[in-house]
Amino acid sequence: MVQLKDDERIDYLLADHKRRIIQSQSVFSFSIDAVLLAHFTYLPINRGKILDLCTGNGVIPLFLSKQSRVPMTGVELQERLYDMAVRNVKLNQLEDQITMLNEDLIGLAKKMGYHRFDLVTCNPPYFKTIDLDKRNNNEHLAIARHEIYCTLDDVLKSCSELVKSGGKVSIVHRPNRLAEIFEAARKYKLEPKRMQLVHPKEGREANIVLIEFIRDGSPEMKVLPPIYIHDEDGNYTEKVAKILYGEEGSRLHGPNSKKFRL
Amino acid sequence: MVQLKDDERIDYLLADHKRRIIQSQSVFSFSIDAVLLAHFTYLPINRGKILDLCTGNGVIPLFLSKQSRVPMTGVELQERLYDMAVRNVKLNQLEDQITMLNEDLIGLAKKMGYHRFDLVTCNPPYFKTIDLDKRNNNEHLAIARHEIYCTLDDVLKSCSELVKSGGKVSIVHRPNRLAEIFEAARKYKLEPKRMQLVHPKEGREANIVLIEFIRDGSPEMKVLPPIYIHDEDGNYTEKVAKILYGEEGSRLHGPNSKKFRL
Repeated sequence: MVQLKDDERIDYLLADHKRRIIQSQSVFSFSIDAVLLAHFTYLPINRGKILDLCTGNGVIPLFLSKQSRVPMTGVELQERLYDMAVRNVKLNQLEDQITMLNEDLIGLAKKMGYHRFDLVTCNPPYFKTIDLDKRNNNEHLAIARHEIYCTLDDVLKSCSELVKSGGKVSIVHRPNRLAEIFEAARKYKLEPKRMQLVHPKEGREANIVLIEFIRDGSPEMKVLPPIYIHDEDGNYTEKVAKILYGEEGSRLHGPNSKKFRL
Repeated sequence: MVQLKDDERIDYLLADHKRRIIQSQSVFSFSIDAVLLAHFTYLPINRGKILDLCTGNGVIPLFLSKQSRVPMTGVELQERLYDMAVRNVKLNQLEDQITMLNEDLIGLAKKMGYHRFDLVTCNPPYFKTIDLDKRNNNEHLAIARHEIYCTLDDVLKSCSELVKSGGKVSIVHRPNRLAEIFEAARKYKLEPKRMQLVHPKEGREANIVLIEFIRDGSPEMKVLPPIYIHDEDGNYTEKVAKILYGEEGSRLHGPNSKKFRL
């Protein structure tokens, strides 16, 4: 058995009643962004290695382990979150597949080796630290959401150093930083190849963007059909309900449960 | 009266029965891309100056003159198309508002003066010249569609040299070149501020992108709700019918007329 600390709770990993996840309102609980990223990413299934940077409580490797048998490594700078991630691996008896590291992503390739991974995923901090008014007072949440310990440039540089040539990098971010993302990525030879925009509902501006890069890829990209989170009535759209709860689950849960901050 | 040459014909400018336009299947006829760009662009209405690069038969200034009283200049490299554009201005008695120039956009700021325009619009060639197999055999169409006389970089450099600091640049292009567009634009201090993706129908990848840049703008952008051209039945969507034919016209024309190559 794993131990819970402070205000931690154990949730099911959405509709997956085999996987559970330790979360905490005050430290880290996963957002719909992580679910969308896990769903968007093309995965190596049987061979290769996956790395997840800014792994938080390890939610992305937990999701990806449903679809892929390859070894996965999660990296988290904050010791408190890393500790949750380690317990989450144990809770789900995934120690043979998932390894957690309490490391800084800056300079990580120097420690782990350059260009070793087939896929690098990352749900990085979205906000510049200069947005002091928007900054969360809670230190754990502030570090996860704001560029306090790593900037967008740091993230993409590390992704580029860690992924193989021809390998994939998948990130989720905010569309308002799209130009910066593309420019920094190309500086580090990450070519955007697939992009999907997520809108809170039809007729509204996009507020999430999913991007897949290929290291040393050719310069041509696709823009997939957009995803709308909610319908006119404020319920999850059919597509999102399926992403969250699966084909079966979307019928069982109905589109009404709203547990994510957006 | 203006004279028609070769296979030229006179069309109405969509539902606008006051404006007419000389077109030609073999030389130049406007596409839905130009209509979407004219609709997307924020315009100076009473004061300022507008420049349209790669103006072809002058379709974009003709559209913009419906909404704005400011002086407009269209620039076209191909003499044959420039000649059509001049006759289009005359045909619509817009000589007092619209001036056409038969010039190369490369180095144009040196001739016209740097940073003189409040808005620069451009519907440039989309395809790299290396796509030889896709290249049109017709010289006029090939030059309009392929980067034979100007590259994406040339276009954005000229836009940047011609627009005022704080002024707008609006272009239409293909989404597969989005990363290149953003990178080249930022090199020339054009910051993407507003973007809209156009999909042929729901569930399909985007095939047109509209982008507005601000010269020396701050690095934050918006992604507007997407536009879908056709509905499930292959008719124009209500939104597109309104863009093409106006509120009134979309009812009169119905969504069935399909005159654009896409």
